[in-house]
Amino acid sequence: MKISINRQYFIEQLNHCLKAISPRTTLPILNGIKLEVKDNQLLLTGSDSEISIEITIPTEVDNEEILEINEPGAVVLSGRFFVDIIKKLSGDFVELETNDSYQTKITASKSEFNLSGNDPDQYPLLPEVNDEESIVLKSTVLKTIINQTNFAVSLSETRPVLTGVNWQFNDEGIKFTATDSHRLALRKLNGDQFAMESMNAIIPGKSLTELNKIINDSDDEVEIHLSQNQVLFSYGNMRFISRLLEGNYPDTSRLFPENYETKVTVDNSSFYHAIDRVSLLAREGGNNVIRMTVEDGNVELSSNSPEVGTVNEDVNTNGVEGEGLKISFNSKYMMDALKAINDEEVTIDFFGTMRPFTLSAANSDEVIQLILPIRTY
Amino acid sequence: MKISINRQYFIEQLNHCLKAISPRTTLPILNGIKLEVKDNQLLLTGSDSEISIEITIPTEVDNEEILEINEPGAVVLSGRFFVDIIKKLSGDFVELETNDSYQTKITASKSEFNLSGNDPDQYPLLPEVNDEESIVLKSTVLKTIINQTNFAVSLSETRPVLTGVNWQFNDEGIKFTATDSHRLALRKLNGDQFAMESMNAIIPGKSLTELNKIINDSDDEVEIHLSQNQVLFSYGNMRFISRLLEGNYPDTSRLFPENYETKVTVDNSSFYHAIDRVSLLAREGGNNVIRMTVEDGNVELSSNSPEVGTVNEDVNTNGVEGEGLKISFNSKYMMDALKAINDEEVTIDFFGTMRPFTLSAANSDEVIQLILPIRTY
Repeated sequence: MKISINRQYFIEQLNHCLKAISPRTTLPILNGIKLEVKDNQLLLTGSDSEISIEITIPTEVDNEEILEINEPGAVVLSGRFFVDIIKKLSGDFVELETNDSYQTKITASKSEFNLSGNDPDQYPLLPEVNDEESIVLKSTVLKTIINQTNFAVSLSETRPVLTGVNWQFNDEGIKFTATDSHRLALRKLNGDQFAMESMNAIIPGKSLTELNKIINDSDDEVEIHLSQNQVLFSYGNMRFISRLLEGNYPDTSRLFPENYETKVTVDNSSFYHAIDRVSLLAREGGNNVIRMTVEDGNVELSSNSPEVGTVNEDVNTNGVEGEGLKISFNSKYMMDALKAINDEEVTIDFFGTMRPFTLSAANSDEVIQLILPIRTY
Repeated sequence: MKISINRQYFIEQLNHCLKAISPRTTLPILNGIKLEVKDNQLLLTGSDSEISIEITIPTEVDNEEILEINEPGAVVLSGRFFVDIIKKLSGDFVELETNDSYQTKITASKSEFNLSGNDPDQYPLLPEVNDEESIVLKSTVLKTIINQTNFAVSLSETRPVLTGVNWQFNDEGIKFTATDSHRLALRKLNGDQFAMESMNAIIPGKSLTELNKIINDSDDEVEIHLSQNQVLFSYGNMRFISRLLEGNYPDTSRLFPENYETKVTVDNSSFYHAIDRVSLLAREGGNNVIRMTVEDGNVELSSNSPEVGTVNEDVNTNGVEGEGLKISFNSKYMMDALKAINDEEVTIDFFGTMRPFTLSAANSDEVIQLILPIRTY
């Protein structure tokens, strides 16, 4: 393999590729990035066996030559370290030349590195994803969906399926659900173009976190292909592949109560900051529990920590309906839920002190956040 | 104590004060900030017993009222936590009101915190610094001096005096010296206005690091007062007091060799980046040792790490004089030294493979950096 490549462009692509590389991999070769030159292009591959990222670099981008191929071939080079070298070199272009024992000479300006490389045939093959079922989303929509659900996945491996977001397809569109069994995030995406035969896919939360870092907040399209065990996100010159979680996702539809007892409408941002303030003391007390009291149309938040002190805050509301209420909840869950609702006005429906309550935008049920209260009374 | 204070201004001052507060203090009350209202002003004090910071807040700044005093008094409030509360409150002004048992009510907008406070009489008295000996430096000059020396202090407590920077006064000016016994940084500040009777003060490196974070890169003046055990930096509305290190600082003047065997002149920035690149491999190999070869007027840097590979770089020089040389050194020390020389062109004087070498600006000996080589040949 012998190539010359635009250094800045190369760095960007390598940085994307690094996102798939975990320092804790059990297979040493997966610490490396695979470079493969064939068919007049350079393929970069990074993988931790859960996530794989494949990037195709053509010889020209926007009519500018970014890659010159002198000799095809392939090599695996130590990931992070190789990328560090490319970053610290000077000059617009860098040359890579690999010999028969995969030793790779990297030259730019007056610097010359000679790195030990690995046999690319030792590198695992990427899973095949067949293209039977696919949908297309704008990257900004996909990012929003990830931001509205992914925070609620479980961090505990006790029930592995809960560490993923459940994508449930039906003839109306897609439902995205995440829950750690203390709170639940639900997002709906309705539309014929998303309709599919009834099926579901549980995508690991970690994969979605990495994907979210790579895709831009733009109108660029992301093609999503689902197979039995894998999902492929195809985005520009990148293929992002994640395994799916096996197992049955719990039926969460019956969790949502009906007919609220108390309904409070608040300004999202000012309520968020009020919770944030009151939670200062809750955190200092070693938990995140804050209390909310609804009485005579007034809403008050409070918290106390025996050694440190107390805090009370009157909440400005845009409306209070139904019965009075005293309820306690985890302030972090409340703040996460508020952040996930992209609307200035938020409605909170309560169904009594001991039952889960729900948050949604005042005039849409596209996003519903459900939180279990904490028993303190 | 009862006051109302401009929140943004208060936050700035509290943040400065926090710099003196260490979470690892042995005296619990030092986790707090002391607030004292008297003589128509508010005094804030933070201390970890090594460093103390005292800030005076007047009622008006630039003809704008920032502090309204309703009742004098004093209290000690839990540092970081109290500052977090002030930051998260809303509104332009915040009110503080302390009762007889030092419980303090903090109100702003619709929020009310009630915090347990401590008796200010339990707070240790700040050391007195008498004003016999003092000099004045511009804050930008003081920052430069700290940056040029402080990095070289020892991090090991084996010889406590080496954890500080030695300020040596004589009739010509001041010499600032820091060394960890592997490298040494020397800065001279000549001028009648700095001349003093022969004396020295060893200021802890940690104190200078914190001071450097607080003072601005500006023409503001810093008044420096020295006493037997303390140094006071008086800056705007702030008094920054640090204890001095006890003991005798070693005489380092005889460390500097004369009559170089090899002299290399380089461009500071491009040499720095060359060292940075070559050190990538040195770091990967588990040490920071890189090699420099001077031969026939050419300078080459190299490093190798058996498992990983090798690197060579030809150095652009602005001139090579004297004999050929092979020498090895710690790349981090070299990079620190280059950063401490504020000049585009740097001269390196070598005195043989086994003797310390020195770096200075090509046309000034205001800063001299000395580095011990590493024996590898």
